[in-house]
Amino acid sequence: MRDVARRAVRAEIAAKAMQLFLAQGFEATTVKQVAAAVGMSGRSLFRYFDTKEDMVIGGLVELGHDVAAALELRPADEDPWTALRHALEVCVDSLEEDELGLRRAKMLATTASLRTAMLDKHLRWQQILVPHVEKRLRDSGQPQAEALAARALVSAALSCLDVAAVAWTEAEGARPLTNLVDQAFAAVRS
Amino acid sequence: MRDVARRAVRAEIAAKAMQLFLAQGFEATTVKQVAAAVGMSGRSLFRYFDTKEDMVIGGLVELGHDVAAALELRPADEDPWTALRHALEVCVDSLEEDELGLRRAKMLATTASLRTAMLDKHLRWQQILVPHVEKRLRDSGQPQAEALAARALVSAALSCLDVAAVAWTEAEGARPLTNLVDQAFAAVRS
Repeated sequence: MRDVARRAVRAEIAAKAMQLFLAQGFEATTVKQVAAAVGMSGRSLFRYFDTKEDMVIGGLVELGHDVAAALELRPADEDPWTALRHALEVCVDSLEEDELGLRRAKMLATTASLRTAMLDKHLRWQQILVPHVEKRLRDSGQPQAEALAARALVSAALSCLDVAAVAWTEAEGARPLTNLVDQAFAAVRS
Repeated sequence: MRDVARRAVRAEIAAKAMQLFLAQGFEATTVKQVAAAVGMSGRSLFRYFDTKEDMVIGGLVELGHDVAAALELRPADEDPWTALRHALEVCVDSLEEDELGLRRAKMLATTASLRTAMLDKHLRWQQILVPHVEKRLRDSGQPQAEALAARALVSAALSCLDVAAVAWTEAEGARPLTNLVDQAFAAVRS
């Protein structure tokens, strides 16, 4: 129960913070301003987020678990690359369905400290997803396929998602993100 | 001529710095200590390197140009993924032939600020390599294949190199890096 409450507060802070970041820029916005916007002291705010970057990136770790859940639901006989592509549709939806998604993605692509925080997220997603891909490789009768294969697949898949998201922001959303992710995944396999 | 001299000084500083980093740890080593080891003031040192991280990573940008040169030498009818794999052998060689290569790779894999600096290097390598892959896609009669395909290929290839290098350090060099890179590249395509 406490976890649920905590998560709700985090989500509320993150939403308010995002409004400020998009209105006046990520770097120009202070933690104090975010705290004022949610009616908290800066000190209380730090009980929920370690850094300003975390207010943008924090939610993405949970999204990684959603991707893992989607991966588990893919057919057992689907090859891991295709399964990863489908599972990542969770991220595509979260960006495309959010009216602020494009601006959010653009902010991530163009702010140095956020790019760095994204790398960290990247590594955490890898930790979340790799065991699922390993299991999939094992179950499909490739017991020799070790951790390395799973890591390579996950890491390459996340790279494809990233380059597609950057292309999406460059095109100002004129091309559907889902198509761009398809193209990136297809390019690596062609 | 001045450029040559500058590069020579940078290489000498980087080599001395690496000795110190490996002997006493990256974080425990101060820029002042590096300066003393090469007989310079800290201030002079900063004319050659912006950050301590740069002393480790700086040379890698040049290595990116070597990879691009190797890529240009691959047969025109080789598919880009295979061509990238062969071109990246330049990096494999630079790590495997260096007696400090394994310890260097381990330091990169386990120091947070160096991982971040590596991301930056990753992005710079992408900028260096993408035009070459784009050209390759165009020349092989895929004029539709745009920047996105080239970026996805390069980004996924660098991911494979990274996970292979991490696996190499985990195995304490017991498995040849070149085989691990092969396995990572094969896993993504299988």
